[in-house]
Amino acid sequence: MAPLSVEEARAALLAGLRPLGRIKVRLEEANGRVLAEAVRAPGPYPPFSRSLVDGYALGPHDANSDGSSFIYRLVGTVTAGSTTAIALKEGTAAAVFTGARLPEGTVAVVPVEAVKERQGEIVVLDFPASGRYLEQSGEEVKPGEEILAAGTVIGPGEISLLAALGFREITVYRRPRVALATTGNELREPGNGRVADFFDRAAIYGSNLYALAAAVEAYGGQVICLGILKDVLEEQVAACRRGLEEGDLLLFTGGAGGSAFDFTSAAFSGAGGELLFTELAVRPGKRAVAARAGNKLMIGLPGTPPAAQVLFYLLVVPVLKAMGGRQGALSAFLAPLKKAVDRPRAERTFYWARVECRGGRFEVTPLPRYPGGIRAAVGANALIDLPPGAAPKEGEEVTVIMISDIE
Amino acid sequence: MAPLSVEEARAALLAGLRPLGRIKVRLEEANGRVLAEAVRAPGPYPPFSRSLVDGYALGPHDANSDGSSFIYRLVGTVTAGSTTAIALKEGTAAAVFTGARLPEGTVAVVPVEAVKERQGEIVVLDFPASGRYLEQSGEEVKPGEEILAAGTVIGPGEISLLAALGFREITVYRRPRVALATTGNELREPGNGRVADFFDRAAIYGSNLYALAAAVEAYGGQVICLGILKDVLEEQVAACRRGLEEGDLLLFTGGAGGSAFDFTSAAFSGAGGELLFTELAVRPGKRAVAARAGNKLMIGLPGTPPAAQVLFYLLVVPVLKAMGGRQGALSAFLAPLKKAVDRPRAERTFYWARVECRGGRFEVTPLPRYPGGIRAAVGANALIDLPPGAAPKEGEEVTVIMISDIE
Repeated sequence: MAPLSVEEARAALLAGLRPLGRIKVRLEEANGRVLAEAVRAPGPYPPFSRSLVDGYALGPHDANSDGSSFIYRLVGTVTAGSTTAIALKEGTAAAVFTGARLPEGTVAVVPVEAVKERQGEIVVLDFPASGRYLEQSGEEVKPGEEILAAGTVIGPGEISLLAALGFREITVYRRPRVALATTGNELREPGNGRVADFFDRAAIYGSNLYALAAAVEAYGGQVICLGILKDVLEEQVAACRRGLEEGDLLLFTGGAGGSAFDFTSAAFSGAGGELLFTELAVRPGKRAVAARAGNKLMIGLPGTPPAAQVLFYLLVVPVLKAMGGRQGALSAFLAPLKKAVDRPRAERTFYWARVECRGGRFEVTPLPRYPGGIRAAVGANALIDLPPGAAPKEGEEVTVIMISDIE
Repeated sequence: MAPLSVEEARAALLAGLRPLGRIKVRLEEANGRVLAEAVRAPGPYPPFSRSLVDGYALGPHDANSDGSSFIYRLVGTVTAGSTTAIALKEGTAAAVFTGARLPEGTVAVVPVEAVKERQGEIVVLDFPASGRYLEQSGEEVKPGEEILAAGTVIGPGEISLLAALGFREITVYRRPRVALATTGNELREPGNGRVADFFDRAAIYGSNLYALAAAVEAYGGQVICLGILKDVLEEQVAACRRGLEEGDLLLFTGGAGGSAFDFTSAAFSGAGGELLFTELAVRPGKRAVAARAGNKLMIGLPGTPPAAQVLFYLLVVPVLKAMGGRQGALSAFLAPLKKAVDRPRAERTFYWARVECRGGRFEVTPLPRYPGGIRAAVGANALIDLPPGAAPKEGEEVTVIMISDIE
């Protein structure tokens, strides 16, 4: 198969992809989830007309007042939460606190500062504009109004609104289940022995499972760990089948190349997958495989940890987002280089980088490169996306994709 | 006490603040945590010299070869993970796969493409530069080398490196414990009744606990929920004492003003706190209180949900970061306004906003404002920070603080 560009590969993976099923979650677990259906207000907000200040609720004007100030007789006090039944008649007022339900008959609210209080009555020095300092029932939210659209990503602001309207549960898309496996006869579980034990052997610790599990969870996926697989086709086909049964997405690392010990594409096919691509026109990550089996996807990432991680952000994140009801790839922006990229590459290349903010402006520094690359992603919070042959100088603008926060 | 600026308030809160204790976490739970001590490599990486390609490991030159091409006799095959003991003598080579340990005596590695194979021997057409296609033991990491500094925030890249070196556990700062309470006689737990039940009463659902709990967890804190407190000083003092006992930081909402039913500062003092501030020169969030008790902090946020949330990002996030071993406030950058802010404010004001990225450039839109503000934070991923009196026009640059991701 001809190598695909990142955009073509992404399009192939996302084609026809729909959000997974819906589930109810409690508000306490809703942060970061995506609403699977619109939410309508069950009632008005605020549910009653209330004061926005500590002050006085005024009844209708007393026709006998003079024109410059208004005198009201105090008939009671209403605190927040109080259900005292006061009705304000002409020329009367009640002391009210912020959040208090306004007495029947209230025509205006004045803050403490705008009033002079004297025995049993108040003089209003500064009459407020109509509707100030108070909030009518339903002023913020009308009953039945759609307050949040389907597809809304829930954050603290949305949680606040939902709680205020009395919701304790909402319907969201369920999290994608991601079955993770890594392949290679040379791989061992970290911590099974000390590093020194391997000096006279030929094994290394498999690190992709740990790095990818963390990344999958950070993007809303649930990890099903299939562990380390040997370079044996039958074992890999069996793992694929199990992964497809339990997961929505299967991620392999290693074995995505074309040599005698690379079984990923054969394993994907063997488990019933229809291959989408077997090679990409990108560096790192040229050797990557993907297949579709019904509405499930299988992606074979390279075995080299930083290459696997680059493709995770470019291809897997958009799939996780789409399966979870969010849209699209990570967003890209332009930022000036703090340090030149001196060695141009013939292929489109993604560099690990660090974005910082100085004096309100972003700047991006490509990170030092290591031969095998196991340290390549350390300290990175972004990727630089360079077209073939580009060798941008210091200060030149490049395309940047954020993968984590700016410290 | 004189009102403090946001920066003064932050400095008062952060003064003398140190990261909390350290704990060990498994690598699977390390994402987003902060290293409490430097990590040194227990051994070299790679642990043995290995091939970076599928190709051939070449022994020393055979002195009889002609000058233009080199002929080697094949003496075996080494796959990744194989411990076959082959020693390459003059004029011999072994087939090697990516990741395979190189045989003793290897002087160079050539990829398959640079070789012509014929019965039992290979002709090297293109002799590689020294050190290409192979990686010496320790080339990436030297034994004992500091690979991650104390204070490093752990992400997938760091997890990958740690796993590759055999670590299954690391020492990180423990998460700050945040005791949360909200005050107000008018507050009820959402979901205890339908909204309609409150129409003839004077109660509203308390939403701050839910919104702040989500935000605290998103910034690495662990929530201890003290629930809804009545406007009764003794009850609030008791809750403060409990919060100080169980938490590192106590967050109250509501009751931070100066009126007869605002007990937060009295409760903080009553529980042994030394007041740091009782008012801020900022909008929203003018009414906020903070106190210190030993190495613990108490912050009283406004009761209005969006005001509580604004101050959460401005003041509480830096405290959570500092307690968790990270530094500083959320970073601010400059972006052009997509829509003018037409109503200038006498005070420094933070506006809820949405940052989007179009054609590689950020732009920021202030969100519509609502009277009571319960919808103010819906859809926001940023805050705009405007100085007193500012009314910037469309296209003008303003200071922006990101509070969540750009979709």
